[in-house]
Amino acid sequence: MALNLTAQRVTLISLGVDDIERSSAFYAALGWQAAETLPEVRFYRLRGLMLGLIGMDALATDQGRPGIRLGTGAMTLAQNYLSPDEVDGAFAAAVAAGAVVLKEPANAYWGGYSGYFADPDGHVWEVAYNPFWPLDSEGYLAEADG
Amino acid sequence: MALNLTAQRVTLISLGVDDIERSSAFYAALGWQAAETLPEVRFYRLRGLMLGLIGMDALATDQGRPGIRLGTGAMTLAQNYLSPDEVDGAFAAAVAAGAVVLKEPANAYWGGYSGYFADPDGHVWEVAYNPFWPLDSEGYLAEADG
Repeated sequence: MALNLTAQRVTLISLGVDDIERSSAFYAALGWQAAETLPEVRFYRLRGLMLGLIGMDALATDQGRPGIRLGTGAMTLAQNYLSPDEVDGAFAAAVAAGAVVLKEPANAYWGGYSGYFADPDGHVWEVAYNPFWPLDSEGYLAEADG
Repeated sequence: MALNLTAQRVTLISLGVDDIERSSAFYAALGWQAAETLPEVRFYRLRGLMLGLIGMDALATDQGRPGIRLGTGAMTLAQNYLSPDEVDGAFAAAVAAGAVVLKEPANAYWGGYSGYFADPDGHVWEVAYNPFWPLDSEGYLAEADG
């Protein structure tokens, strides 16, 4: 087996964090369970990829630029839901877990319904209902018809 | 059907960009094909989720904080490959497409092999070989055995 070297593919999303205990407590409050726990790293299994928390300095060093203060906010992650009601529910769950509210869920100009919150390190999550993006039974995007 | 409101799930990764034409040219040079093209937005279909490019100001506004300069680097995306050779090949393809080299591929302390580059807006990609994370035939993480 060999892989296409320029495929449209992501297998790991890493979030730099200032305090691994604070950050993992946030995601634990959402009900997330770590698949791998190391002193300064947590990996959460998504479907076909991992989401990792890693110390901010360790991430900068791993990127080959130790000492650099990394910035947040310009890359966002979204979870799509089946209805505005589900968006409201997910948003409330995040706020209950300690999320910082950036934008209360509301109708969006693109025809859906969406809200934004930040995790303890300023990583931005959107929760959205998009009537144009069908979801499969696990909540991932359904395969395109054509 | 109803979704678990606190599931470990990501359906969209959005990258804020300063020049949509410059950024989409970079990903096009890698061979990526947009599934949806709008004046200031491009969506690329991954397996079960989308990766989107969106104007930096539009993203800040969408997050409910217009005028804020968003930061990059503290959230990274990775592609895992089957061997160090594949990592070298993918890294070379990115550099050929105009990527900024952050860290040439090299053996990593965690037992794998990895390099880092940045796209035109400073979004950080890792290409890696991780002998502990088996991949399926499409290059996504194989399901865990237990």
